[in-house]
Amino acid sequence: MTAQQGNGLRVAVVGATGAAGSTVLRILHERRFPIAEFRALASARSAGTTVKLGEAEHTVAEVSDGALRGCDLVFFAAGSGTARRFAPVVAEQGGVAIDKSSAYRMDPAVPLIVPEVNGDEVTGEPGIVANPNCVAIPLTVALNPLHRAFGLRHLTVATYQSASGGGRNLVGELRAQEVADAEGREPEHPVYPHVLHGNVVPGGWSMHGLDNDEEVKVVQETRRVLGLPELRVSVSTVRVPVAVGHSGAVWAEFDTPADLDRARELLSTAPGVRYVDDPEAQQYPTPRSAAGTDDVWVGRLRPDAGNPGGLAFFWSADNLRKGAATNAVQVGELVLARRRAGAPVA
Amino acid sequence: MTAQQGNGLRVAVVGATGAAGSTVLRILHERRFPIAEFRALASARSAGTTVKLGEAEHTVAEVSDGALRGCDLVFFAAGSGTARRFAPVVAEQGGVAIDKSSAYRMDPAVPLIVPEVNGDEVTGEPGIVANPNCVAIPLTVALNPLHRAFGLRHLTVATYQSASGGGRNLVGELRAQEVADAEGREPEHPVYPHVLHGNVVPGGWSMHGLDNDEEVKVVQETRRVLGLPELRVSVSTVRVPVAVGHSGAVWAEFDTPADLDRARELLSTAPGVRYVDDPEAQQYPTPRSAAGTDDVWVGRLRPDAGNPGGLAFFWSADNLRKGAATNAVQVGELVLARRRAGAPVA
Repeated sequence: MTAQQGNGLRVAVVGATGAAGSTVLRILHERRFPIAEFRALASARSAGTTVKLGEAEHTVAEVSDGALRGCDLVFFAAGSGTARRFAPVVAEQGGVAIDKSSAYRMDPAVPLIVPEVNGDEVTGEPGIVANPNCVAIPLTVALNPLHRAFGLRHLTVATYQSASGGGRNLVGELRAQEVADAEGREPEHPVYPHVLHGNVVPGGWSMHGLDNDEEVKVVQETRRVLGLPELRVSVSTVRVPVAVGHSGAVWAEFDTPADLDRARELLSTAPGVRYVDDPEAQQYPTPRSAAGTDDVWVGRLRPDAGNPGGLAFFWSADNLRKGAATNAVQVGELVLARRRAGAPVA
Repeated sequence: MTAQQGNGLRVAVVGATGAAGSTVLRILHERRFPIAEFRALASARSAGTTVKLGEAEHTVAEVSDGALRGCDLVFFAAGSGTARRFAPVVAEQGGVAIDKSSAYRMDPAVPLIVPEVNGDEVTGEPGIVANPNCVAIPLTVALNPLHRAFGLRHLTVATYQSASGGGRNLVGELRAQEVADAEGREPEHPVYPHVLHGNVVPGGWSMHGLDNDEEVKVVQETRRVLGLPELRVSVSTVRVPVAVGHSGAVWAEFDTPADLDRARELLSTAPGVRYVDDPEAQQYPTPRSAAGTDDVWVGRLRPDAGNPGGLAFFWSADNLRKGAATNAVQVGELVLARRRAGAPVA
């Protein structure tokens, strides 16, 4: 991985064998990201296995300072520890590290980016760019056009989060429980604190006082992405028996009373939003329809009956794609565009 | 069914063969409701079949004016049409009709009762008593102690409602979808507008403008039961792939800022509430644990981070039991107590 060829970049994915990393590879291929050279990296445990980028097979190497040398763009689809250790190495060597972990999300020196919302903060200069968590991304994509028009003042959201947000093992456990329930056996739950199949679980995250990790992330990251450090956010995160696809029921209060027709217009044309809203015809977002797409599906838009001037809506999005990998690849596209436009290339 | 024996009442269940009705029979037996004579009634279609009240088998008769003659207490576990046709007959003949349908819920002449909240409105006199819907019941049981202490001003709730709230056919459809998904076949959905298994569906109810039937009921009935006709209510109702057990994520604003310790104390001792709240130990309400119980499980109680002085919490309850049949039988117990205390018996 020594030379940049044509217009393509020298790209690596760290954590290439995991659920998030393999989705990054799929989306790099789908979006025809211009890659001059590609390197698949992971922990020592996965080194030597192979992954596919389109039809091309790549042998996975262990991530190391040397393995990252010369990379223009490195997607970190690994844990916070790996990102903390290796993302600065990428930056020091003149590349851009795009991190999906929570390591740098609240670091004031690192931009936290949802391209449709604050993509203009991506400079293309060497450094680290963080991706928000899988609720904050779709939430801000849906809220941003409404905020720009009416001024967001208070946000309430109840989530319906899928098993894949809890990792591959939880998806496997849910699947085994589905089979057990279908066969009339007692489902087991070695991975998760409760049986998830046929259930709704308002927990499973570690706690920060009376709020959980996920709730703290949604509050902090939504504020940062929207540029509203004082935004009042009320959030309850809940896991549901869905394999892929997060959803949320949202109520939003604004400085200016929201006009429903204007809100509909805004959501119909907002980047990244698929506005699906004909409840009489039973058309609204569901995780089963959003899974496999890159859009944030928004519907059931209506005046908040309990708060004059406010709006209520419901969203669904593929948490592995727009909630993680697609967002990261879109950030990569912004880096590429900025570099082509003349930002320094190492 | 001609004479009242001992302290028992002459009791009938209309809709005795349905999901709701058979749960009423189960709960009458469990709670040892004093029955002098029992009559199982249903539509002509089910007449001649048998149902069990404890060990005793009862042949189902077709509901008619004559079949209701002499009844002290009649549980209507049928549709609104049946209730509208026959509940007044019970009242005219000196009995009490306890209706779980929505027919009389907003009739100002008919009390809408959740025993733990406004049971004092039950007089025992001949007439009709309505039961709220399966969300309004647990919601008001959980909110009432907080409202009495702090003065409820605004309520926001996102629901996680089980298939059984949509009727027996939806439970069967969910079960068939679970088997299809486990076997790798495409699940079908002849009953419901979307596949429910592995999904979250913010619809399926008929619409009243931009709100659905269920949302309108939750607003109106919560106001009536709590005696707060002007209460501001923000609600989004959502169906989840759970067989039995509804849940809700709630935010409540009060006239007086809520004290957390006092709120905990109140919920720990509130009638009908099982306060389960140790999220560090992954103890909180889930529908899978609430199913089969008569309690409203409440947990994840905490200050609303987005609204100083407000509270957030999560509840789960068995929608067939406390959300329907148990509530109706508890109303029957109040009628019995009032009659024993001297209210007129026909």
